[in-house]
Amino acid sequence: MTELANKAIQYCRDLACFSEKPGRTMRTFLSSPMHDVHRMLGSWMRQVGMEVSVDAAGNLRAVRHGGSARRLVIASHLDTVPNAGAFDGILGVVLGVALVEALGETYSGPTLEVIGFSEEEGVRFGIPFIGSRAVAGTLDDTILTPPILEAIRAFGLDPTSLPHAKLSAETTAYLEFHIEQGPILESLEIPLGIVDGIAGQSRLNLTFRGEANHAGTTPMILRRDALAAASEWICHVEQSAANKPGLVATVGAIAVEPNATNVIPGLVRVSLDVRHSSDEIRHSAVADLLAAAQKICATRDARTLASRVETPLYTCGPACEQYLDQPAVALNPNLVETLSRAVLSAGYPVHRMPSGAGHDAMILAPHVPAAMLFLRSPGGISHHPDESVITADVEAAIDVGLRFIANV
Amino acid sequence: MTELANKAIQYCRDLACFSEKPGRTMRTFLSSPMHDVHRMLGSWMRQVGMEVSVDAAGNLRAVRHGGSARRLVIASHLDTVPNAGAFDGILGVVLGVALVEALGETYSGPTLEVIGFSEEEGVRFGIPFIGSRAVAGTLDDTILTPPILEAIRAFGLDPTSLPHAKLSAETTAYLEFHIEQGPILESLEIPLGIVDGIAGQSRLNLTFRGEANHAGTTPMILRRDALAAASEWICHVEQSAANKPGLVATVGAIAVEPNATNVIPGLVRVSLDVRHSSDEIRHSAVADLLAAAQKICATRDARTLASRVETPLYTCGPACEQYLDQPAVALNPNLVETLSRAVLSAGYPVHRMPSGAGHDAMILAPHVPAAMLFLRSPGGISHHPDESVITADVEAAIDVGLRFIANV
Repeated sequence: MTELANKAIQYCRDLACFSEKPGRTMRTFLSSPMHDVHRMLGSWMRQVGMEVSVDAAGNLRAVRHGGSARRLVIASHLDTVPNAGAFDGILGVVLGVALVEALGETYSGPTLEVIGFSEEEGVRFGIPFIGSRAVAGTLDDTILTPPILEAIRAFGLDPTSLPHAKLSAETTAYLEFHIEQGPILESLEIPLGIVDGIAGQSRLNLTFRGEANHAGTTPMILRRDALAAASEWICHVEQSAANKPGLVATVGAIAVEPNATNVIPGLVRVSLDVRHSSDEIRHSAVADLLAAAQKICATRDARTLASRVETPLYTCGPACEQYLDQPAVALNPNLVETLSRAVLSAGYPVHRMPSGAGHDAMILAPHVPAAMLFLRSPGGISHHPDESVITADVEAAIDVGLRFIANV
Repeated sequence: MTELANKAIQYCRDLACFSEKPGRTMRTFLSSPMHDVHRMLGSWMRQVGMEVSVDAAGNLRAVRHGGSARRLVIASHLDTVPNAGAFDGILGVVLGVALVEALGETYSGPTLEVIGFSEEEGVRFGIPFIGSRAVAGTLDDTILTPPILEAIRAFGLDPTSLPHAKLSAETTAYLEFHIEQGPILESLEIPLGIVDGIAGQSRLNLTFRGEANHAGTTPMILRRDALAAASEWICHVEQSAANKPGLVATVGAIAVEPNATNVIPGLVRVSLDVRHSSDEIRHSAVADLLAAAQKICATRDARTLASRVETPLYTCGPACEQYLDQPAVALNPNLVETLSRAVLSAGYPVHRMPSGAGHDAMILAPHVPAAMLFLRSPGGISHHPDESVITADVEAAIDVGLRFIANV
């Protein structure tokens, strides 16, 4: 199996050379190098006895008929972020073909369909999951804008055939292999993680208002420093998330006005990203963090009022704007259990975990029982040319995949 | 005296209309509206019996000979920041002329010279105090760059005459009236402040290094969030300065990389501005704040190491750069005492205070005994069109000025 793992890794590395940008990997939705990817992967798919096609959303699809019409889909995405690594997405497609190769000519289990989704990252048109939404049958006119329809036609495809991209009615299970893109498996020193759900996500912007003033002539006691207030809150966000298992909360972006060395900051805008596999815990965490911001502002106002300044100023009130509230998606408990047994029987530790990032499995899960297997990401590095996988982990994934197929 | 105070205020408001930008006040070094300022102020100066000239640095100078050759200079600057108020600088010049008017034709005290410095703010060429440095005799080739020499010639002046701009050898005292540009006098509910020194100033840039990572897939315990580290330090800066009387410390500017909602900040650059009238206290405060930054980073590293990540990352070490260390300037104790007695005898509370901002008095103080009187700034507002003064405070300043002249 080491040989097959090495072959899969080599395919990923070779495919990474098909790029819109010389010297780095960037392959967006229906960009020209996607034709090359289809040709190279399609050729291998045919070699292992699969029927290959490209649907109207640009998804590469290959079917290996088995002993039953019942169909297991193994899929992930072929597109990349700018300056990407070689494994995010495409490894899941390559592993599907590797599994078909490993099963050989005598295979007679459920029909296997390997799908390479044309679009997951949302780079080209700012809209993610175009490929998997076509397969889930959830594309609509809000997504299919004229530029996207034009891109489909320019790639040589016919948008009127999009309804035919929908998942075959015989499909009974969906499996996605994907690199973890995080440091958890590495920190636990285990190769594989069984994803039991995709975390829900809240994204907000908050504004802390103070009063810009001269950094030399305004004594500390008379200041209303918006950055000091925001900083107090950022520390609270970190501390508070660290105390809630499974919660992540991030202040990633900040903008300060006037942002000058000798002027006390008058206004600070910060972003907040909160994720958890329980929507209830996530909503409650967001509410707590907003309340904490208000409390920090009120406490500072009270301190300032004591110093004779009369207008309450610190506030993150009306300027707090939530622009994303994406629910968590649970994966199928039975399939998760089947996948866990496959991991256990292959001799690896069973570690169930939510995915903090979105994946195609999240789009398919409402329509077909879905499961997902993470492979350890060395250094937690992803979306970067240094992104990598360990050969033994890929071998483990193939072993687990074969055991899963045998029992699904 | 109310009438004279109102006249002075009206002069300031009228002079604010001479601007490079229509609808707002902006008057930089030797810009065209400076000719108009010279004409209007020069006319008033002549009306009150003064000899008027413009020196080679563009300073407006007016002399009222008195009963002795001993000379008192009353001065401040005529230039402004962009979108300025009507009182910063120019009020100090206008009050000088108002005092000469108040003293009348029979005046026989020390000779009075009123100077309107051509440049204090450093807006046009990025170099402040060109006017007062010419009068102090400290202009050199590092300041007199070709563009500045060209600006002097373009204004109709002769740079070879710059040495003649130097303060008359008979000068025994320098007095500067200036708006406070801060909220202290207002918070104390008193009109005037006796400046006993100009605070020294340190300016630094610090870099907090963490590790950029995915906001969804990196658990709190495995993060190295550079913004959280910087925020912890910003809170410490505020707290620590609040506990040291007379110290101000400001983090005014911040830059985060990559500054994206869904990415843990990997690098944060912050500015630090620290001021105090004692250089010893200021230097010790800067050292403490840098040590605190190191300690915060070390503590976070220790926490991270405990979680199996092996490379220490948080650091503000080599990337901490101090680019300004300007010593405090003490004003003349005898003159400060004379000014205090003048304030007391005029019936106002005596409040001595350092100036947190730089002023022309700072440039002259090493060359001539200097004193400075602050007028209350309503709302602490300055460098803004809303900048104002209270008529009664201007009246108080004139009263104090007359008493000072009588006793200097």
